[in-house]
Amino acid sequence: MSKKSRKNGHKEQDHSQPQSALMLGIDLGGTKILAAVVDQQGRIMGSAKRKTRAERGVEDVIARIAKTAQEAVANAHLDMSLIEAVGIGAPGVADYNTGVIEFAPNLDNWTNIPLGPMLQQALGVPVFVENDVNAGTYGEASVGAAKSYASVVGVFPGTGIGGGIILNGELWRGAHNAAGEIGHAVMLIDGPRCGCGRRGCIEALASRTAIERDILGEIRGGRTSIVTQLVNIETEQITSGTLAKALEEGDALVTDIIERASYHLGVFTAAMINSLDPACVVYGGGLIEACGPAMLPIIRETTYRYLIRPVEPEHLPIIEAALGDNAVLVGAAMLASASLQGVRR
Amino acid sequence: MSKKSRKNGHKEQDHSQPQSALMLGIDLGGTKILAAVVDQQGRIMGSAKRKTRAERGVEDVIARIAKTAQEAVANAHLDMSLIEAVGIGAPGVADYNTGVIEFAPNLDNWTNIPLGPMLQQALGVPVFVENDVNAGTYGEASVGAAKSYASVVGVFPGTGIGGGIILNGELWRGAHNAAGEIGHAVMLIDGPRCGCGRRGCIEALASRTAIERDILGEIRGGRTSIVTQLVNIETEQITSGTLAKALEEGDALVTDIIERASYHLGVFTAAMINSLDPACVVYGGGLIEACGPAMLPIIRETTYRYLIRPVEPEHLPIIEAALGDNAVLVGAAMLASASLQGVRR
Repeated sequence: MSKKSRKNGHKEQDHSQPQSALMLGIDLGGTKILAAVVDQQGRIMGSAKRKTRAERGVEDVIARIAKTAQEAVANAHLDMSLIEAVGIGAPGVADYNTGVIEFAPNLDNWTNIPLGPMLQQALGVPVFVENDVNAGTYGEASVGAAKSYASVVGVFPGTGIGGGIILNGELWRGAHNAAGEIGHAVMLIDGPRCGCGRRGCIEALASRTAIERDILGEIRGGRTSIVTQLVNIETEQITSGTLAKALEEGDALVTDIIERASYHLGVFTAAMINSLDPACVVYGGGLIEACGPAMLPIIRETTYRYLIRPVEPEHLPIIEAALGDNAVLVGAAMLASASLQGVRR
Repeated sequence: MSKKSRKNGHKEQDHSQPQSALMLGIDLGGTKILAAVVDQQGRIMGSAKRKTRAERGVEDVIARIAKTAQEAVANAHLDMSLIEAVGIGAPGVADYNTGVIEFAPNLDNWTNIPLGPMLQQALGVPVFVENDVNAGTYGEASVGAAKSYASVVGVFPGTGIGGGIILNGELWRGAHNAAGEIGHAVMLIDGPRCGCGRRGCIEALASRTAIERDILGEIRGGRTSIVTQLVNIETEQITSGTLAKALEEGDALVTDIIERASYHLGVFTAAMINSLDPACVVYGGGLIEACGPAMLPIIRETTYRYLIRPVEPEHLPIIEAALGDNAVLVGAAMLASASLQGVRR
């Protein structure tokens, strides 16, 4: 970005001492792209969204991301020259050092795509790439529900179960950039088949997909449920919203299965705490957003009961995520800001 | 320590620029106390040991620790005034900030015993207290088998299963000084009862105690095993040494049960790696020292198969501990040295 374009574009906002540096946060999902201008406190100044259309190919997706980013900046009544850094959260294995997406099944099987460099060229601003759930956890830990805690485990049950680990205020990426895959801890050896091909992972016991499988199994086995009135189980997914409706109606089958999944999540959470002893645990994701009131009390009660070294709940709270759909883009923006400061030091 | 005593005691070794600071490492076990003078490279300059006799009370144990420490220093032909710091690894919950043992079932149920301050008074040297398995992991990570790796998970199967986590070269103690209790991760919901009162913890599936339980169960159920010739199963424990002998003799029952325990440890190790992505995993403890050749190949094969993001084994090795019985005292000494440097900074 040239000094000139900065001057010309936004004289009136171009303070020589920035009150709050501005970042652009992007959530690149399998179906949609969300972008927003984010300040240092995680506040959103303007946003935009667009479908991903991964099937049209990498070049097209990059162009769509750039367009969405530019729209978000325009909606904030700003100029791209004011953006210090871009952070983008992407599904799959992302190498934050190189900005390369090593593998992303949800993006039409992207393999070794230099997303960071390509987007940096398109936008003219430094781009930092991160795994989406890592970014979401960092968002909650830096400016969201867990912002007053230095060490945070994030658990995000939805279609799968993603997670992230923040230690001493920093995202823990591990020795091979592969940390945080908490969803594939085996909790039930020889248990139900997981999407990953193994058996008994917590994702195979307590994700929305696992809950759907268990409900369908019981219905096929003869149990009745309001779910069959809410959706056509032959053709439609049982979404988290449908589960919430069934819970509201007091459906016994859905209640049973949600309770069991919550118990499993509690046992799992205790294992994470027994190993890592974070200052807090934050739960988010589609399933929790929809069914949190039914699930979180059971998750909490089970977790504290399964701790090997008991801690008062107020000293190790299990809290609900606060940033909702913005967690990934806000976290990606905050990570980009932290990375930029790291580069400058 | 006064300058005078330093001068008088050891003129010839009292260099004003110490080549290598000396620490005293102590392993306070339920049955015995080990003490040794340790240099910065983890080399042992002299050692001593003595029975713990916890039943005689705290004051007596502290006096026995002090005597063992003094003997180790004498055996190294040194004077206590040359010792920069004392590190002591103790079983149970140790608060390294205060030096207090909060609870130690293996030490006649010590509760809130200020071990650090008491020993410091007895020896006249700064004392740092740490949980024994944390200390052992740190020993292996700082100067033992894993010394070239910055982030290490230590797994020590014996009577129970202890562990420790080293991140970026430092012991990860967690937000409540409770990290590293990896043995109580539930791997089999509703599985066998664990010593902790819960069910299906990895300790209840793969410790020596769990293996003994399974062997006895099968023998009582009618299976034959050489174990009944090696020990009197009505009155004696099946030690790790006995298990090793039975394996050597090709005993089918012991082989089956050791193989299943090793498989469980592999699944467990994969879960730790999926979450934390360390640079290496180190396996030690009594069971591995005795039966490592039978167990480690299965642990390794299973671990790599259960990783959600495959890594070449040479990039994430699973190695055997190198310090043996000295791991705890060497690690405690190295931690004391690191803590002292932290205090001085």
